[in-house]
Amino acid sequence: MYTSETFVRVRYGETDQMGYVYYGNYAMYYEVGRVESLRQLGLTYKELEDMGVMMPVLENKSKFHQAALYDDHLKIVTTIREKPGVRIAFYYTIFNDNGTLIHEGETHLAFVDKKTGRPCRPPNVFMDVLKPYF
Amino acid sequence: MYTSETFVRVRYGETDQMGYVYYGNYAMYYEVGRVESLRQLGLTYKELEDMGVMMPVLENKSKFHQAALYDDHLKIVTTIREKPGVRIAFYYTIFNDNGTLIHEGETHLAFVDKKTGRPCRPPNVFMDVLKPYF
Amino acid sequence: MYTSETFVRVRYGETDQMGYVYYGNYAMYYEVGRVESLRQLGLTYKELEDMGVMMPVLENKSKFHQAALYDDHLKIVTTIREKPGVRIAFYYTIFNDNGTLIHEGETHLAFVDKKTGRPCRPPNVFMDVLKPYF
Amino acid sequence: MYTSETFVRVRYGETDQMGYVYYGNYAMYYEVGRVESLRQLGLTYKELEDMGVMMPVLENKSKFHQAALYDDHLKIVTTIREKPGVRIAFYYTIFNDNGTLIHEGETHLAFVDKKTGRPCRPPNVFMDVLKPYF
Repeated sequence: MYTSETFVRVRYGETDQMGYVYYGNYAMYYEVGRVESLRQLGLTYKELEDMGVMMPVLENKSKFHQAALYDDHLKIVTTIREKPGVRIAFYYTIFNDNGTLIHEGETHLAFVDKKTGRPCRPPNVFMDVLKPYF
Repeated sequence: MYTSETFVRVRYGETDQMGYVYYGNYAMYYEVGRVESLRQLGLTYKELEDMGVMMPVLENKSKFHQAALYDDHLKIVTTIREKPGVRIAFYYTIFNDNGTLIHEGETHLAFVDKKTGRPCRPPNVFMDVLKPYF
Repeated sequence: MYTSETFVRVRYGETDQMGYVYYGNYAMYYEVGRVESLRQLGLTYKELEDMGVMMPVLENKSKFHQAALYDDHLKIVTTIREKPGVRIAFYYTIFNDNGTLIHEGETHLAFVDKKTGRPCRPPNVFMDVLKPYF
Repeated sequence: MYTSETFVRVRYGETDQMGYVYYGNYAMYYEVGRVESLRQLGLTYKELEDMGVMMPVLENKSKFHQAALYDDHLKIVTTIREKPGVRIAFYYTIFNDNGTLIHEGETHLAFVDKKTGRPCRPPNVFMDVLKPYF
């Protein structure tokens, strides 16, 4: 299992007239969680794309326990629970400034060869950085 | 059961550099599906808010079968399967120009009294327009 | 001069906690204005990209006279005032349901060859559909 | 004159299929620039709203010199050039990882009393933190 933390500050444009973060904007927070969790391993998603691999989303799930508010400094805890194969799943828990768990989510992505458009194994470098955790 | 159809045209700003609709933007398409399905019943979400009821999202799920592309004219089929109580669930299937099912989703929302911030029953007018279907 | 009209319905996710359309979301409305004004001429921006031409934005200006609100059915009037060269300018006026002018904007874009990344002349088909207006 | 710097990391969802940051997303970067420049003075926009003042946008201008790309770590330099009155103007220059100036923008906002909806003077605390610079 690999877990990492990152933070996002809620932007005004991410709220809606209910005064909450619009429910569609959590997907962007998940993306930040995924990308920064890889960066903390020394790998960037940008590099993966440059290697010819892209990672489209297959499935996404969200549970909204409490609203995130404007200017909240949210902690995103991102976890990879299972060793990745042709698919990978990221799990997120999001906490507000009070340390309250306000949100849970998960995203399942595929590894796809950009040239062929077909599913592929994760690049070796990807498996190498994750090896210590599985 | 109540089912309705509406259409959205994919905007350039909704795509990402993969050339697909960014996965977070489907939530906005679901919103259009929900809002237009109510409008077709003669009711607007705006009116519900004006009556003092808001509908925050509790849960959201998405399955991405095939990518939506720039300028696609997507058909969103929105369905309410179960009679709403203090919660309501909307189910969506999205089809591209070729009639291919490319996406499935569901959103569970609460009815909340704007003044008290507490869960409430749907307004009578809401239940009235849905009565023929349940 | 070429002028056309199109409509957008304000989405909930486009509002912010002020209860107005977030100022950054007008750019998306401009895009709808541009794209639909071309479609009404029988041309799509998608086709232009398929021909190997892309149109990055060089400059954008916006004047906010009055707020657009949730569920407003906005009329976007899009105008091309000058005959396009290697650049093209679109001017927009946006009206709310009461017919009030609430917003003005303009976008200047370049024609760029996707292969070379260099500025280019607009494709002939583009100039042909606009010829009657200049 | 008051100048400050802040950074944003370009998100995948902020790019479009051209592979650039969508032109409408710079408004969000400007917002980050404004908000963080105030925070560095010990003031938050959230506090201003809590004091009963909101700051709707009146005018916005953008010049796109070079594209911002996915995962770029952009430096946003935000400047207040003139002493604020019932209006305030923020000017931005944005630099990419190479230190290249890629973008310039400006936003003019009003101070508005939330209760009356009418223009008002900036709160004293706002003028106080800016006093040393004008």
